[in-house]
Amino acid sequence: MLFELEAVLEFSNDVSGKKEIEELMESVNKELFKRGAPKGKEEEASKLKEWSTEGNKLKVRITSGRYVRAPDALLRLRSQLNLLGGKIKAGVRRVEIRRLEVKEVELGREPSEEVRVAFYVDRIDVKGDKADIKFSPSIPIDVIEAGGVDRIIELIIEKVERQAYEGKEEVKRLLWESKEKEVFFDKDPSAELEKMNWIRRTHSKGQFVYGRNFTSIVNAVKEILVEHLYKPLGFREMLFPKFEPWDVPKRSGHAKSIYPDAYYVMVPKVSNPKEWEEAMDYFRITGEIHKEGIMKKVEPVGILSYAQCPPFWQFLEGKVVREESLPIKIYDWSGPTYRNEAGGTQGIARVEEFHRAETLFIGSPAQVREIAKKVEDRLTFILDKLLELEIKKYSVVPWWMAQEGEKKMSDKEDEGIGTVDFEAYLPYKGERKRSEWLEIQNVSVIGEKYPKAFSVKSTGGELWSGCAGGSFERWICAFLSQKGFEKKNWPDEIGRRVKLEEEVKFA
Amino acid sequence: MLFELEAVLEFSNDVSGKKEIEELMESVNKELFKRGAPKGKEEEASKLKEWSTEGNKLKVRITSGRYVRAPDALLRLRSQLNLLGGKIKAGVRRVEIRRLEVKEVELGREPSEEVRVAFYVDRIDVKGDKADIKFSPSIPIDVIEAGGVDRIIELIIEKVERQAYEGKEEVKRLLWESKEKEVFFDKDPSAELEKMNWIRRTHSKGQFVYGRNFTSIVNAVKEILVEHLYKPLGFREMLFPKFEPWDVPKRSGHAKSIYPDAYYVMVPKVSNPKEWEEAMDYFRITGEIHKEGIMKKVEPVGILSYAQCPPFWQFLEGKVVREESLPIKIYDWSGPTYRNEAGGTQGIARVEEFHRAETLFIGSPAQVREIAKKVEDRLTFILDKLLELEIKKYSVVPWWMAQEGEKKMSDKEDEGIGTVDFEAYLPYKGERKRSEWLEIQNVSVIGEKYPKAFSVKSTGGELWSGCAGGSFERWICAFLSQKGFEKKNWPDEIGRRVKLEEEVKFA
Repeated sequence: MLFELEAVLEFSNDVSGKKEIEELMESVNKELFKRGAPKGKEEEASKLKEWSTEGNKLKVRITSGRYVRAPDALLRLRSQLNLLGGKIKAGVRRVEIRRLEVKEVELGREPSEEVRVAFYVDRIDVKGDKADIKFSPSIPIDVIEAGGVDRIIELIIEKVERQAYEGKEEVKRLLWESKEKEVFFDKDPSAELEKMNWIRRTHSKGQFVYGRNFTSIVNAVKEILVEHLYKPLGFREMLFPKFEPWDVPKRSGHAKSIYPDAYYVMVPKVSNPKEWEEAMDYFRITGEIHKEGIMKKVEPVGILSYAQCPPFWQFLEGKVVREESLPIKIYDWSGPTYRNEAGGTQGIARVEEFHRAETLFIGSPAQVREIAKKVEDRLTFILDKLLELEIKKYSVVPWWMAQEGEKKMSDKEDEGIGTVDFEAYLPYKGERKRSEWLEIQNVSVIGEKYPKAFSVKSTGGELWSGCAGGSFERWICAFLSQKGFEKKNWPDEIGRRVKLEEEVKFA
Repeated sequence: MLFELEAVLEFSNDVSGKKEIEELMESVNKELFKRGAPKGKEEEASKLKEWSTEGNKLKVRITSGRYVRAPDALLRLRSQLNLLGGKIKAGVRRVEIRRLEVKEVELGREPSEEVRVAFYVDRIDVKGDKADIKFSPSIPIDVIEAGGVDRIIELIIEKVERQAYEGKEEVKRLLWESKEKEVFFDKDPSAELEKMNWIRRTHSKGQFVYGRNFTSIVNAVKEILVEHLYKPLGFREMLFPKFEPWDVPKRSGHAKSIYPDAYYVMVPKVSNPKEWEEAMDYFRITGEIHKEGIMKKVEPVGILSYAQCPPFWQFLEGKVVREESLPIKIYDWSGPTYRNEAGGTQGIARVEEFHRAETLFIGSPAQVREIAKKVEDRLTFILDKLLELEIKKYSVVPWWMAQEGEKKMSDKEDEGIGTVDFEAYLPYKGERKRSEWLEIQNVSVIGEKYPKAFSVKSTGGELWSGCAGGSFERWICAFLSQKGFEKKNWPDEIGRRVKLEEEVKFA
């Protein structure tokens, strides 16, 4: 990897012929540009190849390999020049990149299609498994300060890596399967639920209003979770926010790739009703919403919660948790979360507004691994023995990686990091062996990702987290698909908790 | 009220000299323009004052009073002309308004400031309590077809009426007050809750993460509501949607004025990840959200639920409910609702994301009035006797009117329509008599508004609805403000249900 950089530093005053500058420029290759390069790799550090002054401008050309890269050298140089300030009676007012190229970037594999970056990159020339990157001269210095050049290089490497996974089958490994269970139904329960008026579609895609009987089943599932999972394992309920300000997806990593799948939230830039008279008048006159007018008067402030646990982390953000408070074991079902399903919705098997019990645990790596195992065992017991569902368990691509666009298994599986998915058989989809089963629940050991992202530490050393999530819509879809609507075919554990009544009748 | 209208009807062919047109134009003042005018008011109906043809154009001038208004006469004329189609070998292709004025519109009072309408109105000239309205010639014919002219006139009258209420004190009438209760605390409980880590602010305005102890109090309140309100009165739980597609605020009337107070929801216009690569790359490079890019790629699809009950109505929309299913008695606490608080947030006393038990009942007017009374009595019992709170009840401006911008009491109070508010004393705000109390709960008889708006009918005749709502945040704010944090000062009804534990400790 070879960096070539040409830049102009513009001063607040004439600097031509200043001997302090000359002294500095003569010395940088010995010390300033070498500092921090690993032993034996000093040759890869930056070198000042040329420099000249003209009026208030200093032109430089810097090259480097991998260590103390040319953009970093440029920033160091600027700092040193500013330290001369008093002596040369001038400060650096502006830095302009004239040319920035990185050659022979190792991509790890040959790209299968063109690679592009939407910002600050003019060209990417690929030769085999290497690329030459030509940056835009317009790349702002504050992007460089924030590490943008390295990020762009990483992004390109990652895009090439992803090409290799794209279109590939889902990666998963069967861990366990329940016995075959007796099946009492062979229809799509969603259609049945709609026919019976137990649920009704709204004007929005993938959204339902759930009636009293469906809600009674939801509450039965909740009760079972409390009695057989949360109480015995000592979990406590909390209320997690359901709107996520940008800080949350920025820290959780969802901001890397959630965009096509998100529900966005906007609020008025100005709340003065006078400012909104246009939209009000428009509706009063036409009976329609003035969408263009709204778009001009709102700003995007975040997204509706997608993975449910990320907004919790604001509870601990920036804190050091005392070891005696660990492990933290909590759950939340205080509201729906949202996904824009590009692939289309499907009854209650794939909705856009869904209701989930989210289970979260935080502690030392050993604590988190142990709790995850117990949660998995309890969930297996509930699904297999209490609800008597036919299920399988798989080791899958961890959800937090999938939601950041990754399609491969965790490379820390040997430390216990990863996700277990529960899939349930849907008889209406066809034969057991050939049909698509429904993912209804997962349990994960996430590792240090969230504590790190939200700057949470423990007085007891390394801090990990894990979580488990499953939507009531999917649990009930699986349950009704296998057991049907006749209560006599339901296991007592759920049957005795559900109160069925006549739904509202329509003429 | 006098309408003056000049318009040009453009035909698909030359119509000059057609005798069929002449015959029609000679007859309209006798029949077509008079039809439907009330007996004795025929003089107020439209009159064709002038007409002429030139090539494919027919120019008309129509005047009218209040009945069969000139714009309606124009539409009738167009229909009749199109019926001639076969005979004159031409159809009306376009209607262009040349001039439309309405004079002497009675405003009900003299405006206190200028009145403006953002669309289709060029001028409003006010003389005393009357106005002359000059419409824009660009007003589209489909706005006229949809009744836009009448809506604009109504809107102007309403704007003048509102000027009279603006800035006035809240209208309310004391109905009842509890005995003075012993007070154990004089601080702001929100500050206390934050200090104890029971709740923590998020990165968003007026939003908190609620910890285990606060959530335990929330659950205690829920249990009390179930045991002492919902179960005895036969209410059943449902899950109401929490995102409201535009159809909901359009029907509920919130679209009239909710704009400055709403949280808006947008979804991607296109879900293909390739379309979103720009936003993804931007975050990867800069660590920031590409807000401008997002704004270009999303469309506004609705709002986050504000009043909680409106989205329920999609469950019944367009249906005729069988009388035997009435009354319908339901409640929902399946997720938070949202308000953009222009006036600022205030601890848990005024949050933007809040959690509410919403109570809804639907039936005949007699049923709804009776249930509302029972719900009010039960809530009074719970707040006054079980939680031992010091409260007052007021008759207030109904919330659905307030949320549409009205500031006056219902004019159907004698039919039982209206809202009762419960206010609680907050000792930290000062003396009982002088300080501002907190509105924590309301109960309303709404009347026919919602069934009508969502086209819901009953086989048993008139259909009404009523509702009751109160946020847990405010109930608990009132409770902790009066009772403090020492459990020994709490009534047993709540104390025995709440499990307090050490919250997470920070180093």
